[in-house]
Amino acid sequence: MSPDVLAMLRRGTKGHQLVLPEKPAASVLAKSERDPQFATVDVAFGQPDPGAIAEANQLKWIHVSSSGITRYDTPEFRALAAQRTIAVSNSASVYNEACAVHALSFMLAQARKLPLALKTRAAGGTPAWHAVRSACKTLRGETVLIVGYGAIGKRLAELLRPFKMKIIAYRRRARGDERVPVITEDQLAHILADGVDHIVDILPESAETRNFFDAKRFATIKPGAIFYNIGRGTTVDQGALLEALRSGRVAAAWLDVTEPEPLSEDHPLWAEPNCFITPHVAGGHADEAKTLVRHFLKNLKRFVRGEPLLDRVM
Amino acid sequence: MSPDVLAMLRRGTKGHQLVLPEKPAASVLAKSERDPQFATVDVAFGQPDPGAIAEANQLKWIHVSSSGITRYDTPEFRALAAQRTIAVSNSASVYNEACAVHALSFMLAQARKLPLALKTRAAGGTPAWHAVRSACKTLRGETVLIVGYGAIGKRLAELLRPFKMKIIAYRRRARGDERVPVITEDQLAHILADGVDHIVDILPESAETRNFFDAKRFATIKPGAIFYNIGRGTTVDQGALLEALRSGRVAAAWLDVTEPEPLSEDHPLWAEPNCFITPHVAGGHADEAKTLVRHFLKNLKRFVRGEPLLDRVM
Repeated sequence: MSPDVLAMLRRGTKGHQLVLPEKPAASVLAKSERDPQFATVDVAFGQPDPGAIAEANQLKWIHVSSSGITRYDTPEFRALAAQRTIAVSNSASVYNEACAVHALSFMLAQARKLPLALKTRAAGGTPAWHAVRSACKTLRGETVLIVGYGAIGKRLAELLRPFKMKIIAYRRRARGDERVPVITEDQLAHILADGVDHIVDILPESAETRNFFDAKRFATIKPGAIFYNIGRGTTVDQGALLEALRSGRVAAAWLDVTEPEPLSEDHPLWAEPNCFITPHVAGGHADEAKTLVRHFLKNLKRFVRGEPLLDRVM
Repeated sequence: MSPDVLAMLRRGTKGHQLVLPEKPAASVLAKSERDPQFATVDVAFGQPDPGAIAEANQLKWIHVSSSGITRYDTPEFRALAAQRTIAVSNSASVYNEACAVHALSFMLAQARKLPLALKTRAAGGTPAWHAVRSACKTLRGETVLIVGYGAIGKRLAELLRPFKMKIIAYRRRARGDERVPVITEDQLAHILADGVDHIVDILPESAETRNFFDAKRFATIKPGAIFYNIGRGTTVDQGALLEALRSGRVAAAWLDVTEPEPLSEDHPLWAEPNCFITPHVAGGHADEAKTLVRHFLKNLKRFVRGEPLLDRVM
C-alpha cells in the first residue's frame, strides 16, 4: 500500500482505531503470518487467515480484498461465520470491469490472430499474408459459453452484446434474473458438443470446481473450440488441457490464471504454440489500490449504519 | 480465387458473359496488367486500372473489391465517371465488421498490456507483476477520437458503447445522422489537446488525407495518447510518428497499415518497443472471398433491375 493510499485509508477510518499488520503478505494469494493484534479487531480488511479468524472473538465483518474468496469458501468456514454471525463481503466490484475487459481482450486477440499477425511481415497476396488474413474472425454468429456467471460474466455478456454472438451461461444455481440463457450441469456436455466456439472459464476456486475442466469434459467439446481462463487455475486439469491443445480439440487456450502461478519454467504449457498466458492480471487497473480502499470505506460506512453491505457473500 | 469461389461466381453470373482476366494481380493493392478483353465489358468487379477504364467504352458499373477506393478517388476519375455515367460501388460492407473488430482488438490489447503481459512470467506481488498489473486499464472514462467516421467508424462506436468511454468522431463532412458528437477540422487541434486518450485513424487515402497525421498534428495531441491506424499508411508521416513515440507524446502505436507494406526490414518502427504492426489484415475474415463474391452478386441483381446499388460511392 503506497503512502497516499494508506493516507486515504487513515482519513476514511477516522474515529475508528486502524490496526495495520506488522508483516504484510506479499500478495493476496500468499498466506500471511499470524498477527497477535488480530484477536482484538471488529472488522478485517484484506485476506485474514481462517485459522486466525476462529480465534478473533471480536470479529463481526470481513471485507476480502479480492473477488475470489477461496480461503473462506469451505463448509467449515461457512459454519463458523454463520454461528458467529460474521459478515463476509468481497471486492468483486473493484475487479469486475477489468476482468471482463481482460477476457474480451483475449477473445479479440484470438479472433484477430494478434500473436501471429504481430510477427508476420508479409506483403499483401503472399502465402504468409493469406495465412493470417484468412484465419482472422469477427466473432459474429459464433457461440460463447460463460462458465461461472457472476458479476464478471454478466459484464462480459454486456461487452459482447454488440458482437452478434450467441451467448450462453453456465451457473451452479440459476437465479432467474440472468439476461442470457442459463444452463445447468446436466446440460453442459450436450451444449459443449453441440457447438460452443468459445469457453470462458470464470469459475471461483472451491472443492466443487477443482478440475472442473478435466479430460472427460474436454473430450465433450466441439473440436476447434477456444478455451479462456480468468477464474482460477485449479479449475482446470492442466495435463488434460495440454493434451486437448496437442490433439487440436482445443484450438487455443488463453489463461490469466494457472496452478501454480507462475507455472514452473519447464512447464510444457509455456512451449505450446497456441497457449497464451498472462500473469494473473485480469483484475488489474491503474489506481487499483485506491479503488479497493474506496470500496472498503464505502462499505465501512454501511457497516457502521447497519445498512446492507455491498458485495456481501456470506 | 479458389475453385469453389469461382464456381459461385460462375453460377451467380449465369445469363451474363463472365470474362476473367488473363493475368490476375497479386493483391488488391498491386497494379494489374492491361487486358485487351477489358474494353468489351459492361461491368467490372475488382480493381480495374483507371487508365484502362478510360478506354473501356462499354463500362457502366465498377464494383471495387476493397473498402478503399484510392485509385478512383481523384478529381480526374470522378470527372470521367460523372461524364460517362459510370457507377462505382465498393465492398465496404464486406470489411466493415472485421475492420471495426480489429481496431477494438488493438485497443483492448493495449489496455490490457497484452504484448508485455504475455511475456511476463512473474509471481503475484513481485515488481514485474506490479508493473504489468498497474499498467492495465479498462478504457472506462477515457476519450476516443475516431478520425474518418464512415461505416467502419460507426460500427467501432457501436462496439465501444458498453465501455463507458467518451466517443468523438472527426469527419470531413458531417451528415447529421451520426450517433456520436462529430467535430470538424478547425476543432481538431483543440479537441486533441484537450484530452483524447485514443486516436483511431480510419482515413481513406486521397490527396487530402496524405500525411494528415504529421509532426504538427502530433505536436497538438495530449502526451501519452495511443495512436491506431487501420485506414491507410499514407495518412501518417511515419517519421513524425517515430519521433512522437520516442518522445513519449504518443505512448504506443498500433498499425495495421503502413507505407509501404510491409515496411523495409530495417525500418525503425519495427524496432520501436511501443509500436505494434499487423500486415494489413484488419478487413480479413474466414471465407472473405465468398463474402466478397456474394456482395458483388447481390449488387449485380440490383444493377440488372436498375435498383440503387449497395455501397455506391460515385
